[in-house]
Amino acid sequence: MNDTLQKLEATIAARQNTAPESSYVAKLNAKGLDTILKKLGEEAVETIIAAKSGDRDATVYEAADLLFHTLVMLGHQNIKLADVLAELDRREGVSGIDEKNARDGK
Amino acid sequence: MNDTLQKLEATIAARQNTAPESSYVAKLNAKGLDTILKKLGEEAVETIIAAKSGDRDATVYEAADLLFHTLVMLGHQNIKLADVLAELDRREGVSGIDEKNARDGK
Amino acid sequence: MNDTLQKLEATIAARQNTAPESSYVAKLNAKGLDTILKKLGEEAVETIIAAKSGDRDATVYEAADLLFHTLVMLGHQNIKLADVLAELDRREGVSGIDEKNARDGK
Amino acid sequence: MNDTLQKLEATIAARQNTAPESSYVAKLNAKGLDTILKKLGEEAVETIIAAKSGDRDATVYEAADLLFHTLVMLGHQNIKLADVLAELDRREGVSGIDEKNARDGK
Repeated sequence: MNDTLQKLEATIAARQNTAPESSYVAKLNAKGLDTILKKLGEEAVETIIAAKSGDRDATVYEAADLLFHTLVMLGHQNIKLADVLAELDRREGVSGIDEKNARDGK
Repeated sequence: MNDTLQKLEATIAARQNTAPESSYVAKLNAKGLDTILKKLGEEAVETIIAAKSGDRDATVYEAADLLFHTLVMLGHQNIKLADVLAELDRREGVSGIDEKNARDGK
Repeated sequence: MNDTLQKLEATIAARQNTAPESSYVAKLNAKGLDTILKKLGEEAVETIIAAKSGDRDATVYEAADLLFHTLVMLGHQNIKLADVLAELDRREGVSGIDEKNARDGK
Repeated sequence: MNDTLQKLEATIAARQNTAPESSYVAKLNAKGLDTILKKLGEEAVETIIAAKSGDRDATVYEAADLLFHTLVMLGHQNIKLADVLAELDRREGVSGIDEKNARDGK
């Protein structure tokens, strides 16, 4: 029932077309897709390094950065988080069946 | 109010310590952190390439993969998604103030 | 005086337009740029994980993979390794001066 | 017969343990492995984005950055470029045979 990501998506949507100097989200969107994708890539690398270091706080921090920049990218591409979650729901249905078959030895 | 990620986190937790052949999540966890982080990195790269291609469906698909493997990594490291969301909530509070100051010209 | 990379570049060039089943390089090129870039990204992530593990042999192996796939990408894009090396030479000239100024306290 | 990378390796080795403010290489080494690996990851992502954009000059520039930071990483880990090139030579010998077998239809 946590709606942090939905609220964050709404905040990002509200900011993304405002003046670049008004917020970090606006600045990223003004710079464009390549800049947003570089940040997404950087945060993935930082998440990997934090997890590999076994640094719990850093992993939480970098994973938050990774989710944040994933939402910024989705917003920039006019893709709704709901579409990504629907894709995960769809798979869960499929993999639930797979899982059952695996358990049943089929 | 979407709870897809919370349900997915629970599913991953239920599977991660079961027999490797029983599910993809169990197999990844049996292989260990390096394998999980390689997958996380691969999915970030595939998300970048899909977005850069302007391929909407592929971007949804790869972003779902990225979220999924981020959850698998968090589960493996005994980190709750709630902790990552709390970090995002904390920033939103902070950046709300920053945003206001930016708007007020402070 | 080592010319490993130049020889490797020539081998890759000779193979890249041959039948996909004849070699790994031909197969990658037949699949196209996205596949080559995914491999480049994967090898970068694996290099990071190997170095972070402090595993010397794995770091050598993954760095070799990273160089190899960088050459495959350059070949696919019709870019000569010599052009990349010329860019490094150009910077070295510039940074040699920077370095001297830094040493001289300028 | 190009020895750009060997010269660059020597330059990096000469700088890596000097005062952090004296050069970029010294600064990266003073910050440590995680910073060097983040840079390596960033340059890989920027190379991918440049190639995907079909921007030849940017691809040359980013590939040069990627090679440079790979050398900085190797230097930091006390690994010689010659060891990585020897690994590539070893494979080339192996894959030369594979290639021949493929051509011969074996």
